[in-house]
Amino acid sequence: MSLTEAKVLSQGPLPDEEARWVKLTKITYQDPKGQTRTWESSERLSRPAGSDIDGVGIVAVLDKPSGPEIVLQKQYRPPIDKVTIEVPAGLIDAGETPEQAAVRELREETGYVGVVSESSPVMFNDPGFCNTNLRMVHVTIDMSLPENQDLKPELEENEFIEVFTVPLATLWDECKRLEAEGYAIDARVGTFAEGILMAQRLKL
Amino acid sequence: MSLTEAKVLSQGPLPDEEARWVKLTKITYQDPKGQTRTWESSERLSRPAGSDIDGVGIVAVLDKPSGPEIVLQKQYRPPIDKVTIEVPAGLIDAGETPEQAAVRELREETGYVGVVSESSPVMFNDPGFCNTNLRMVHVTIDMSLPENQDLKPELEENEFIEVFTVPLATLWDECKRLEAEGYAIDARVGTFAEGILMAQRLKL
Repeated sequence: MSLTEAKVLSQGPLPDEEARWVKLTKITYQDPKGQTRTWESSERLSRPAGSDIDGVGIVAVLDKPSGPEIVLQKQYRPPIDKVTIEVPAGLIDAGETPEQAAVRELREETGYVGVVSESSPVMFNDPGFCNTNLRMVHVTIDMSLPENQDLKPELEENEFIEVFTVPLATLWDECKRLEAEGYAIDARVGTFAEGILMAQRLKL
Repeated sequence: MSLTEAKVLSQGPLPDEEARWVKLTKITYQDPKGQTRTWESSERLSRPAGSDIDGVGIVAVLDKPSGPEIVLQKQYRPPIDKVTIEVPAGLIDAGETPEQAAVRELREETGYVGVVSESSPVMFNDPGFCNTNLRMVHVTIDMSLPENQDLKPELEENEFIEVFTVPLATLWDECKRLEAEGYAIDARVGTFAEGILMAQRLKL
């Protein structure tokens, strides 16, 4: 397999009654001045009943002698017809906490076994456009464990993921380099890199 | 007006033929092993013809004696029925560069007049779900300019935005505090804060 083999063959309108994973919603709301208005939104249909979160993103950090590195992945994404640079991520199964989902998805997608060190607020990906959201969960990976040397990811038959790591200190430059090579940068990776850059430049 | 007055009154399916701002797309693609598959996606209808970017997000930094502060805003977002914490942002007008859009939107939404110091790669908000994207543009605000002391935002009649600033060094803690108060954290703000936190903790 090669990620660069993947490509859009054709695309067209998706009738609402045919959609199984996404839907459009028409919202009638009262604005801050009390006036009634409408808004058009989109949603995932995969959110478990009773949950208010779609998924988790995982900031997985390897503690290496040369400095900490973040685990990233390359994955072909049909909505943008590009191979993206993303953090490991996944939808939350019914009955799982975000932290449990993070440890499970990280192991399945990358093989790394880690320990949760931090959970973020719920973050909304594009709240003027859709309701999709996630929690970012930080996972620390002990590289002295044997399972973290001989990685055994368990990908599903329709998952095609290439895993790699990048030093955190140079993540911004690496995002720019990867974009120049034709990869698409996921906003969760890109703005995380921006935060590191800002802290370094302004000595925060 | 009060942002907390805003609320969803009702919502229901949005038929594709009625939608003016968003649409669903059915994509037929070839996966990395050459197999033909389908994917369901959503898109904005507002992207200017010929452009490959929807909008800009603005990391606007005030240089204050007490330390740098970021300009944020509170805005009610119908798709999630909450008041969000976001960076200033906007769609790109036809013929504008992202940098021009950033300076214009910042002035219109907040009143601050600034100078562009950095542009990010194109970032995709949720590329497994939709094609929406943005460039993050960094804008530096000189607080000694008279126009940055006596702010005159030019909001449209249907824009309700409250502007505030937060010290960059404590942005993560402030995101957690604002979430506890009931605000929703935009992922572009939250992961930016995460990057700063990570750089501080790991001394990057």
